[in-house]
Amino acid sequence: MKLIRYGQAGKEKTGVIINDVKYDTSAFGGDYNEQFFEDNGLQRLEEFVKANEGKLAPVNDSERLGSPIARPSKIVCIGLNYADHAHETNATIPSEPVIFMKSTTSLVGPNDNIIIPKNSVKTDWEVELAIVIGKKASYVEEAEANDYIAGYVLHNDVSEREFQLERNGTWDKGKGCDTFAPLGPFLATPDELGDVDNLKLWLTVNGQPMQNGTTANFIFKIPYLIHYVSQFMTLLPGDIISTGTPAGVGLGFKPPVYLKPGDVVELGIDGLGTSKQTLVAYAKN
Amino acid sequence: MKLIRYGQAGKEKTGVIINDVKYDTSAFGGDYNEQFFEDNGLQRLEEFVKANEGKLAPVNDSERLGSPIARPSKIVCIGLNYADHAHETNATIPSEPVIFMKSTTSLVGPNDNIIIPKNSVKTDWEVELAIVIGKKASYVEEAEANDYIAGYVLHNDVSEREFQLERNGTWDKGKGCDTFAPLGPFLATPDELGDVDNLKLWLTVNGQPMQNGTTANFIFKIPYLIHYVSQFMTLLPGDIISTGTPAGVGLGFKPPVYLKPGDVVELGIDGLGTSKQTLVAYAKN
Repeated sequence: MKLIRYGQAGKEKTGVIINDVKYDTSAFGGDYNEQFFEDNGLQRLEEFVKANEGKLAPVNDSERLGSPIARPSKIVCIGLNYADHAHETNATIPSEPVIFMKSTTSLVGPNDNIIIPKNSVKTDWEVELAIVIGKKASYVEEAEANDYIAGYVLHNDVSEREFQLERNGTWDKGKGCDTFAPLGPFLATPDELGDVDNLKLWLTVNGQPMQNGTTANFIFKIPYLIHYVSQFMTLLPGDIISTGTPAGVGLGFKPPVYLKPGDVVELGIDGLGTSKQTLVAYAKN
Repeated sequence: MKLIRYGQAGKEKTGVIINDVKYDTSAFGGDYNEQFFEDNGLQRLEEFVKANEGKLAPVNDSERLGSPIARPSKIVCIGLNYADHAHETNATIPSEPVIFMKSTTSLVGPNDNIIIPKNSVKTDWEVELAIVIGKKASYVEEAEANDYIAGYVLHNDVSEREFQLERNGTWDKGKGCDTFAPLGPFLATPDELGDVDNLKLWLTVNGQPMQNGTTANFIFKIPYLIHYVSQFMTLLPGDIISTGTPAGVGLGFKPPVYLKPGDVVELGIDGLGTSKQTLVAYAKN
């Protein structure tokens, strides 16, 4: 299945994509949130969709897409999980995964604007494959980790490099600004995706190719990441683990290249669709 | 007002403390969560308590206390905010606040057991004054920061030093284990507390004094911290900022001293009560 949320920000309705057409599933009841994943929502939704085949109302393509999942309890990110990206940022290959957290207030829809924070001069991009956790996960064995995956989703792990690296720590400081986590267009359940260790992922800025990677280059693979993170904190249904970005971020250029108002970022992953964000300057409401 | 939550973990009921007696406020309706703080819950609760004076049922002293607030969207912590603590951990005095985040799954009641994580050998204590945010806060001016405070609460920022400092980053790795955020006994509204810049805070292990500090030694004061954190992420009603710990943590001893099963930690802050946790080894359910 492919799950979407659509409509006004903060008041999203739920839906699914079937054969490239979006359908409303509001009548299913409830949001795609912690409770949904905890209560076997994916299976119940599948049954609902089958039972209502041919009867679901299509969603107009002009509708805004929101994040395909409601605000989770946390967004955990893995740093430096592609050797080429570690190299470009002058970091050593990690002996074990780097973990940091994004404030969940950073979550937005896949095509929403990215707001350059007040006083920011180093706003950067990072295309990433994100995992959505399907059930409570604590001290998970690597061999059983796949059982804890609800699905996968495209994520731009937007990062302010000065905040992240030059403002006296930790990385969290440069990762959780409003709009810094465009997620979607859709959540794909594992059966939709095939081999997650062999997906191309790419990102362009104003049409110019910047990132061209493949998950074949993961330093730490997905089952290990779920096992590893669950040694340090309990993951709840609906939580996100974002698996790191390949080479080609702005920080890696000599000199570095950062985003400015009007820039357009487009990104995609095989099987997970594409998203597109326009950069705008911070403006007080 | 002093707010409590009590009863079975995960099914806490709400209450208040009046003249050292605990009363149930379940009839007020709803939990002490984001919605409560957002919808002017403190004022509505005060009116409810006044309207029901003499009619509220007392809470039995044998009842377990939960965290006085429901799970927030995030727990933000300030590192190294007392010069004496920075010194004992061989850290330099920060030029600006260090920020890290605790997984909200670490939240427990003030007198619940602390579980020493699997494979942990360096579980440590940190008595802290925590702020509870009262309304959505983004780019808050320091002069207006006090308007964003719902209240204050005692917090043990339990920390696993190997996970935090020796496992390849970031600090988040050693801060968010289950039971690592005992909070309470109660949330005190600002009017209950007097001068927050002159509160004694202390912690003992097995009756032995370990931490004896005062918030007079803050490097960065509370209004500045709210202003500062709100430059990097939006704070939501009910969110927590924990303001750092004074000297006397286990990591600061030569050689360091860490917690083991059976140890008892007691802590307190002037006007915010005391809490007491017993250390237990991790055991698979």
